[in-house]
Amino acid sequence: MIVITSNQTPEEQVQDIIRVIEKEGLQVHLSRGADRTVIGLIGGVTPKLAEHLRQMKGVENVVKISKSYKLASRDFHPEDTVIDIRGVKIGGENLVIMGGPCAVESPEQIDEIARLVKASGAQVLRGGAFKPRTGPYSFQGVGVEGLTMMAEAGRRHGLLTITEVMTPEYVDICAEHADILQVGTRNMQNFDLLRKLGTCGRPVLLKRGFSATYDELLNAAEYILAGGNRDVMLCERGIRTFETYTRNTLDLSAIPVLQSLSHLPVISDPSHGTGRRELVEPMSKASVAAGANGLIIEMHTDPDNSMTGDGVQSLFPDQFDNLLRDLEKLAPLVGRKFSPGPEPVVTV
Amino acid sequence: MIVITSNQTPEEQVQDIIRVIEKEGLQVHLSRGADRTVIGLIGGVTPKLAEHLRQMKGVENVVKISKSYKLASRDFHPEDTVIDIRGVKIGGENLVIMGGPCAVESPEQIDEIARLVKASGAQVLRGGAFKPRTGPYSFQGVGVEGLTMMAEAGRRHGLLTITEVMTPEYVDICAEHADILQVGTRNMQNFDLLRKLGTCGRPVLLKRGFSATYDELLNAAEYILAGGNRDVMLCERGIRTFETYTRNTLDLSAIPVLQSLSHLPVISDPSHGTGRRELVEPMSKASVAAGANGLIIEMHTDPDNSMTGDGVQSLFPDQFDNLLRDLEKLAPLVGRKFSPGPEPVVTV
Amino acid sequence: MIVITSNQTPEEQVQDIIRVIEKEGLQVHLSRGADRTVIGLIGGVTPKLAEHLRQMKGVENVVKISKSYKLASRDFHPEDTVIDIRGVKIGGENLVIMGGPCAVESPEQIDEIARLVKASGAQVLRGGAFKPRTGPYSFQGVGVEGLTMMAEAGRRHGLLTITEVMTPEYVDICAEHADILQVGTRNMQNFDLLRKLGTCGRPVLLKRGFSATYDELLNAAEYILAGGNRDVMLCERGIRTFETYTRNTLDLSAIPVLQSLSHLPVISDPSHGTGRRELVEPMSKASVAAGANGLIIEMHTDPDNSMTGDGVQSLFPDQFDNLLRDLEKLAPLVGRKFSPGPEPVVTV
Amino acid sequence: MIVITSNQTPEEQVQDIIRVIEKEGLQVHLSRGADRTVIGLIGGVTPKLAEHLRQMKGVENVVKISKSYKLASRDFHPEDTVIDIRGVKIGGENLVIMGGPCAVESPEQIDEIARLVKASGAQVLRGGAFKPRTGPYSFQGVGVEGLTMMAEAGRRHGLLTITEVMTPEYVDICAEHADILQVGTRNMQNFDLLRKLGTCGRPVLLKRGFSATYDELLNAAEYILAGGNRDVMLCERGIRTFETYTRNTLDLSAIPVLQSLSHLPVISDPSHGTGRRELVEPMSKASVAAGANGLIIEMHTDPDNSMTGDGVQSLFPDQFDNLLRDLEKLAPLVGRKFSPGPEPVVTV
Repeated sequence: MIVITSNQTPEEQVQDIIRVIEKEGLQVHLSRGADRTVIGLIGGVTPKLAEHLRQMKGVENVVKISKSYKLASRDFHPEDTVIDIRGVKIGGENLVIMGGPCAVESPEQIDEIARLVKASGAQVLRGGAFKPRTGPYSFQGVGVEGLTMMAEAGRRHGLLTITEVMTPEYVDICAEHADILQVGTRNMQNFDLLRKLGTCGRPVLLKRGFSATYDELLNAAEYILAGGNRDVMLCERGIRTFETYTRNTLDLSAIPVLQSLSHLPVISDPSHGTGRRELVEPMSKASVAAGANGLIIEMHTDPDNSMTGDGVQSLFPDQFDNLLRDLEKLAPLVGRKFSPGPEPVVTV
Repeated sequence: MIVITSNQTPEEQVQDIIRVIEKEGLQVHLSRGADRTVIGLIGGVTPKLAEHLRQMKGVENVVKISKSYKLASRDFHPEDTVIDIRGVKIGGENLVIMGGPCAVESPEQIDEIARLVKASGAQVLRGGAFKPRTGPYSFQGVGVEGLTMMAEAGRRHGLLTITEVMTPEYVDICAEHADILQVGTRNMQNFDLLRKLGTCGRPVLLKRGFSATYDELLNAAEYILAGGNRDVMLCERGIRTFETYTRNTLDLSAIPVLQSLSHLPVISDPSHGTGRRELVEPMSKASVAAGANGLIIEMHTDPDNSMTGDGVQSLFPDQFDNLLRDLEKLAPLVGRKFSPGPEPVVTV
Repeated sequence: MIVITSNQTPEEQVQDIIRVIEKEGLQVHLSRGADRTVIGLIGGVTPKLAEHLRQMKGVENVVKISKSYKLASRDFHPEDTVIDIRGVKIGGENLVIMGGPCAVESPEQIDEIARLVKASGAQVLRGGAFKPRTGPYSFQGVGVEGLTMMAEAGRRHGLLTITEVMTPEYVDICAEHADILQVGTRNMQNFDLLRKLGTCGRPVLLKRGFSATYDELLNAAEYILAGGNRDVMLCERGIRTFETYTRNTLDLSAIPVLQSLSHLPVISDPSHGTGRRELVEPMSKASVAAGANGLIIEMHTDPDNSMTGDGVQSLFPDQFDNLLRDLEKLAPLVGRKFSPGPEPVVTV
Repeated sequence: MIVITSNQTPEEQVQDIIRVIEKEGLQVHLSRGADRTVIGLIGGVTPKLAEHLRQMKGVENVVKISKSYKLASRDFHPEDTVIDIRGVKIGGENLVIMGGPCAVESPEQIDEIARLVKASGAQVLRGGAFKPRTGPYSFQGVGVEGLTMMAEAGRRHGLLTITEVMTPEYVDICAEHADILQVGTRNMQNFDLLRKLGTCGRPVLLKRGFSATYDELLNAAEYILAGGNRDVMLCERGIRTFETYTRNTLDLSAIPVLQSLSHLPVISDPSHGTGRRELVEPMSKASVAAGANGLIIEMHTDPDNSMTGDGVQSLFPDQFDNLLRDLEKLAPLVGRKFSPGPEPVVTV
């Protein structure tokens, strides 16, 4: 860390600052310039010390020069993380496709969608059992039963499953039934939830908060990693900007940026990232072209009658299928190949 | 609601749209213009119908013309809500000041701060027992003990207390010890929490999400109101913008706008809204001048050593005291007067 | 247009509103609902009438239902515009690549870069003669001489040329020397400039303002089209958001959205859209995958010593060449093919 | 400036960086930490060198530690600038009020408004002669005649005048007729215009671009100051955010922030900053409470029939008058007093 003092800071205040730093056992490097004096700190700086220094008289600015995350950083883990879940590989050169409805509605619905998702060549079935809704009277999801419906459909059709977990107390039951747990955009900084996921024994897909910076996303991932769970995927799903024509602005630069800062796989969500069905196809292709390690896409057999009202961004099955055909051709041009599907679950 | 079709929509599609609306028991008013045909719906429209229509062939746009919140709307409740908590009045012409540390640290700390907050003329003691932190290893708060320390300090010095509740399971214990429960910016759309607060028996201060629109804030308030709890305060605490010099951009237009759309009191938080101590005083005065019904301000006896690192935005006690002296003069010029403090708790 | 009145608007005010509308010679359609009355206007509404209505007593909202642009809209021009400049085709299924330095620096520099741009298969040479700089003492461009240097290099190597024009008085001289005139992001709403470009006789590439909505961009294009110039390209070049890691957030959804709203070609600028060299390649591919009709890319033989300090986002020649090789393979997968290069200029 | 290298930078690259710095005649201070090496530069750094360093191999980040503006900075000019225009004082403890229509429409209109503005106690008459409009067919202003109409009205009623200048070629004629020249939000970075204003001999009110940071605004002011014109006022007029209920988000923190970074007066524009008449009064009071040195407010005798369609944000004369009565009481509470009006122009 670096502390910058203005050209009007009296020497006495500079010495006060140095004293505070040395009291914490850190070394000081001093550079005096024409306009500013720069005080470099060598050693580990606590957030408390950083804030204390920022408030001291004479301090003009405090600049962080090391990243606040370590486990998520490529500096400390240069190779790509490749998560292996029953033979499905996520990360590196592999491309994984997760498809399915916004919400699980019935055993028949999820079974039929699973069949189509598998037939199109995807490896993971997505579906929500519990739904966060923005109005007090809207559909709340089918609950725990939805988890078993989806697990059953995944097993029958040879797909992994991913579902969103919204509170710490549901982590265990979700981890029992789903292969991957997803953290939604509004929960990216729900630290109780992140901590619990650090020990849940399942890979986690962490969605970027719709107003979170790359740095904040990586710090949120650090929470899960620090708990001992190294199987974390990052997910770009659109940010809030002044443009309201699309529900969010899908920030595809996030894909190469996060891949350069971190070794974790980066998944793109063009469904929530645009909120419009007609944009899912071009933004899916753009995501893969930008280097995404996977896609999570809403697909529904009857989107006009979906129970969540999110049908507006769901692909029809034939659109989903056509998209995957196109992605098969596109992937090799950008160094990606479809991951194999999961090995069957062997029960003795 | 209004459905707009483009000038190229065939008559057959228009008739399909009308059929769908009438099937739901709603009446239709049709206006044919040169470029567009407008189909007005008369009656209550479910979100599901709205989305269905949006997706139908030929539909160019669907415009909501009624607000999605009712209980929070001034349309249905023209008079200001004035919340009365043991004689402290929040709303209408009353001005309420909430002061205290970011986090309760010890019985001595909170007692001394309570004494100063009271002496300055504020009515409410603020303080966090549980802290959401953005890094995995930072201070997490002193927990339930903090609640009793703060309750005790409030009682001794004649102050109401307000504390943040972060998960549904802590609502009951917080409601037992604090007079007002606060929902933080990251929880504004934590619907499990909002639902639980709807029946908690305590007034609630609901902070605007740092990327939430006015409409989203009012819909979140609707959740609590719909649960039966009519004592809700809205709180502007800064939004995320491209300007990074301040931690957030305090949006003071929110004060008169929310007051015109809703009957609920509007509180301003200049401490989190700016993240800089030197801006708290001018932004507090500006908030009151804009018509705020109250302020929630961080104050600490030793901000440089506060345990949360939020000391950087905390006022010193003498700054807090000077500010309240100035606000006493300013308030009457904008139709506000300091609310009386709380009546003592009588225990038989 | 639609005027919405609240449920508390007295009948007398509704009649006032109707009278104002009818006075302008427009027809009225009235729909009375439970909460709101909706007054539809049939006929052309002037901005002045719209604003007048918005301010009238009893009016809650005024909703525009027709677009404010006509010539730029696909509603009135369903087929793609394909601009043909000496055999180079821009729009439709054609892909055009514009490459070159941020600024023209010398005859040798621009000649060498033109040679490389042509050898890589691009059709257009870009380069600035006049530079807008954000600090008072930085490089301002080489001026009119730069125009002739670039024109000469384009002619010699068989490339069209594009250059930015910053003020109305330079339109004529730029139009004399360059094949395409470019409007920069800060000038998107410089209406004097747009008007002048409407009659300049050259195709125009109009960059989206870094805080402009799609609607504002299309209205700016309307200005040029209304002047009689139908050869307009839209250009996405990144918007300002809360994320500061990248210089701007390249909004690739703009590509399919603008193509659906308008018939005009859409070009992507990954160099300015990201501000980082290492992101140009993935974002170029993503742009084409999203359906872009072309790319404008900075390339420099010696970016570390470029005179503008924009070298940080310029590709090296071999990176540019490799990218074009990859795009040749990618284009056919998304229905694009490289446009032919320009026919030679025949001088009699 | 500081250059930061990652922990994986080979020593050879560090030496390359140092060589480049020393070649420019600057001194180097080196601090080696556990994770990063920090290279401090002592002396003046050109933007070109900064960019060059940013691109060098091994460089992780380049941090600017001196401000890029000098003349606008309080570091180099600790006392408040107070601009004196014929006895009207702008800056310091003085409060100046500028009122008038969006556009000058006729001699009668501007004369009547001037009379009312003066009667209410304001010191400056505002009004546009040339209007930037966002649609190709809307009102463009009355032109040069408007300047003389306004000058005449100002002289007759004892008011200074301020008008917007939109292109460099109109600076001279505007300077001839108006006392203060205004730069609009879309021209904040029109460097040709800023340069011209640096030598125009008139005080300038520089509006913040609606997507400009504080730093960018101060750098734009530097342009004018560097030309020799020291009479510059900064103006906060709202920024673009995700909230669309208000036309812009008026960022009142800008007032104390700009006053701490710079010695220049800061004016607030609540009319454009909110775009809604009913918000002008509360936001005017909030601006003064936050410490503004002045206000610029739209007022119109017949806003419903104003020619620009901006009437929606104009106060009626009685609202303007009531507001000034309230501000007279408010000002002394925040250390402000109304500036005297202008001395009469003496013509020999």
